Amino acid sequence: MEGRSLKMDIDDSSTSNKVSVSLTAEVLDYHDPGPNPGHTPPAPPNEVTQYSGLGPTKANEKPRVVVLGSGWAGCRLMKGIDTSLYDVVCVSPRNHMVFTPLLASTCVGTLEFRSVAEPIARIQPAISREPGSYFFLSHCAGIDTDNHVGFDGSSLVIGVICGSMMILDRNAGSVHCETVTDELRTLEPWKFKISYDKLVIALGAEASTFGIHGVKENAIFLREVHHAQEIRRKLLLNLMMSDVPGISEEEKSRLLHCVVVGGGPTGVEFSGELSDFIMRDVRQRYSHVKDYIHVTLIEANEILSSFDDRLRHYATKQLSKSGVRLVRGIVKDVDSQKLILNDGTEVPYGLLVWSTGVGPSTLVKSLDLPKSPGGRIGIDEWLRVPSVQDVFAVGDCSGYLESTGKTVLPALAQVAERQGKYLFSLLNRIGKAGGGRANSAKDMELGDPFVYRHLGSMATIGRYKALVDLRQNKESKGLSLAGFLSWLVWRSAYLTRVVSWRNRFYVAVNWATTFVFGRDISRI
Amino acid sequence: MEGRSLKMDIDDSSTSNKVSVSLTAEVLDYHDPGPNPGHTPPAPPNEVTQYSGLGPTKANEKPRVVVLGSGWAGCRLMKGIDTSLYDVVCVSPRNHMVFTPLLASTCVGTLEFRSVAEPIARIQPAISREPGSYFFLSHCAGIDTDNHVGFDGSSLVIGVICGSMMILDRNAGSVHCETVTDELRTLEPWKFKISYDKLVIALGAEASTFGIHGVKENAIFLREVHHAQEIRRKLLLNLMMSDVPGISEEEKSRLLHCVVVGGGPTGVEFSGELSDFIMRDVRQRYSHVKDYIHVTLIEANEILSSFDDRLRHYATKQLSKSGVRLVRGIVKDVDSQKLILNDGTEVPYGLLVWSTGVGPSTLVKSLDLPKSPGGRIGIDEWLRVPSVQDVFAVGDCSGYLESTGKTVLPALAQVAERQGKYLFSLLNRIGKAGGGRANSAKDMELGDPFVYRHLGSMATIGRYKALVDLRQNKESKGLSLAGFLSWLVWRSAYLTRVVSWRNRFYVAVNWATTFVFGRDISRI
Repeated sequence: MEGRSLKMDIDDSSTSNKVSVSLTAEVLDYHDPGPNPGHTPPAPPNEVTQYSGLGPTKANEKPRVVVLGSGWAGCRLMKGIDTSLYDVVCVSPRNHMVFTPLLASTCVGTLEFRSVAEPIARIQPAISREPGSYFFLSHCAGIDTDNHVGFDGSSLVIGVICGSMMILDRNAGSVHCETVTDELRTLEPWKFKISYDKLVIALGAEASTFGIHGVKENAIFLREVHHAQEIRRKLLLNLMMSDVPGISEEEKSRLLHCVVVGGGPTGVEFSGELSDFIMRDVRQRYSHVKDYIHVTLIEANEILSSFDDRLRHYATKQLSKSGVRLVRGIVKDVDSQKLILNDGTEVPYGLLVWSTGVGPSTLVKSLDLPKSPGGRIGIDEWLRVPSVQDVFAVGDCSGYLESTGKTVLPALAQVAERQGKYLFSLLNRIGKAGGGRANSAKDMELGDPFVYRHLGSMATIGRYKALVDLRQNKESKGLSLAGFLSWLVWRSAYLTRVVSWRNRFYVAVNWATTFVFGRDISRI
Repeated sequence: MEGRSLKMDIDDSSTSNKVSVSLTAEVLDYHDPGPNPGHTPPAPPNEVTQYSGLGPTKANEKPRVVVLGSGWAGCRLMKGIDTSLYDVVCVSPRNHMVFTPLLASTCVGTLEFRSVAEPIARIQPAISREPGSYFFLSHCAGIDTDNHVGFDGSSLVIGVICGSMMILDRNAGSVHCETVTDELRTLEPWKFKISYDKLVIALGAEASTFGIHGVKENAIFLREVHHAQEIRRKLLLNLMMSDVPGISEEEKSRLLHCVVVGGGPTGVEFSGELSDFIMRDVRQRYSHVKDYIHVTLIEANEILSSFDDRLRHYATKQLSKSGVRLVRGIVKDVDSQKLILNDGTEVPYGLLVWSTGVGPSTLVKSLDLPKSPGGRIGIDEWLRVPSVQDVFAVGDCSGYLESTGKTVLPALAQVAERQGKYLFSLLNRIGKAGGGRANSAKDMELGDPFVYRHLGSMATIGRYKALVDLRQNKESKGLSLAGFLSWLVWRSAYLTRVVSWRNRFYVAVNWATTFVFGRDISRI
């Protein structure tokens, strides 16, 4: 109790952030499992210990950058951050980054799942080696920016608790985390808090269902490796189920009807991969049912709307040639075996893949921070969240505030990666100038703001064909290519961009073995 | 109804197998989805259609060999069977064969899961190409041998049903199947029957728990790819959980205590792989927790009891050197976080792998066929089940009847593979001699009986060391090797024995990348 009241006495009332008694009390309960974990009190397993965690950094420690998320933005940032200046703590429910542009290829076995997943410990080795850097396999449950007061190293708080003199930590904002449980009922999530000097929110976005009934329950999205695994298992199950004796013609056709909703690059690439799989592998290895399998791509507007008209027509022609049925329509309702379009048409399906774009996640929606149009976390030109100190937001979860006069950038890997790259050099610059600690970069000159320059778009459409559109935007002029040459450009571009040499090698090996032996059809 | 009574009239009363009225009636309900599936009546989806299936083969069709299971015995048989003589139908809940000797290596990422899984359609391409051959992703629910009467092609049953003359099928024994449902509540299993001319039971065995409480619920076996996947996910989860702030010392040690029960080749190889993983990868990439991870191998008797004494001592020394704690003990009880030994010792664990050997599966136990000592399906020297016609049993599910005077062979891949090989040549010989049809090989001379000659045993113990024991049995003399040379022999032997060139290539590539880049730690 003395600790609490002492803490209140020295509250920095000049800051606009109010420090409440209860929050101050929480800080005293922090356990720091850092260099000498022998001092942590033994906690009974599976008990929810609300307030354990990493407390504010001490004067003899490096300032701490907490990164929420392990997508394009967060990983690019972690890759480039100077770990001699900062400790890095990453919080994410997955310990790897997914190389999303190649994810569609893994659904049918053209590539293996592990070839497109890059462990974070490989992207930033410090995270598992440095004593103050960590990766936590956890969900972020909330962000507490109120407490981000910050004292510089010279003004450490000294208090007397239970009669012995001790140095109290500086205050800092914190992140509430809950460990993943793999949806096992036997596993209770472990709750803890991490204080930050700098916070980078890179939480990404969620697939949007537009509130259409039944999508969440029956469709599979295509954003994570486990989605691709689910699609592959379901596709192989349906192929085998349709061969079982006694299955009616109608049921066979339903099981083998693959429906893709959403004609953006993901939907188109997946449709192209599926038709390749059907033309090459199903015809050979499921010859009993080969005439029953069909792919339908449903899109409300035009497919690949961001691409050049000429490329779009080319893609439409090529997809139709490969047997993909293109349907213009809006989905009204989805049940477990059929979907219903706006005009009443019923479309029975065996596999439904939903890739209609993304929207803000529940967590991002719940954050009490200013938002950009569309509900993304509002940022200024330096990717800062302006209402609070030391908080940045990058990637799909963020968008410019209207006051900046800039339009919100599309939710693309390219944007996220560029923002991660910009932010790590900004943070490195701040750190070098001595502004790494909480609240110590307030009046620092940040230099050039972030500027996004679109480098173009690529999409493969199957049958060794791809589109490459190097125009900066829909209106401007520039190079656009379609066909086999584009496909070579597509393959080589991605091969060089895959993060590690190990995965570059595996992607090349997977492509080669798929070419020689066909796709793997083990259902594991 | 006329069909039924007619059928009864022509019952072959000379056979010992009684044909009941109800069974005959069932046969009339068979749908054959063969060459012209347009004639199958449309069945509502998800409805249990008990009696659809593949009826007895017709005179213009090849005789049908039904293989239950896709392990070593079943796959070796399918690989070699002459598909110009027989149609092959395989029933198994997995569409691939697992190369079990390398399964332990996949748990820690030395090898990838797909490198040790071989699709059955690749082992026997006819199964997906020939009009009468099939693979059914289903469980076998029962075997009906009573109905196996069989008429030769000349004595087809002709009957009059509803006033029109029709040819009735020959009668044959059948197998009851249920499609897999992936434990999804939304999926109702589809039930169907398959008649056989020849039936090969290759259902394998189940991991035995010796009735010890809590084993099934808490331990992971190591027999299927999904077991290896579960082990890998759990191990990576525990490594990351143990790094979470606030976790007590005790809990950290528990999470990172890997316990292996059973000191046979699988248990020893898995322990060796684990210690390799810890020494090389954990030390580098989980340096925060590297001092907490330990491996304990519990065995009631001696480890590797089938190996030469010298090799056994070598293995014991090497394992201890790599940090594997060897404990002599019997497990009495298992709960979710600790196991209890017979002497009362409590062993807390984070990962528990159970590999104490195998016993007959529930299905094999339920079959009303004579059994060998130990509850395996009784066979004679030609691998036939003697009490019924045209039924063979191979691999772990079978054992010699006491009347043969032969001792039951151990449940080894080597035995299963050799039996599969013997049986395909026996069946090919029978087929060539015109005995392929149901009940037509009754009095045929079968030639040499099956003789098993043990070629030796191999096991790797980690750290580039292995054991190779080329003695035919425990008592006889012969070459035995231990060390790096053995390890080279071990690797090259398995590399050449992996079934397909694709997987040989992938195993080599996996080994090479593990050597260069370390093991993959993405938790996907």
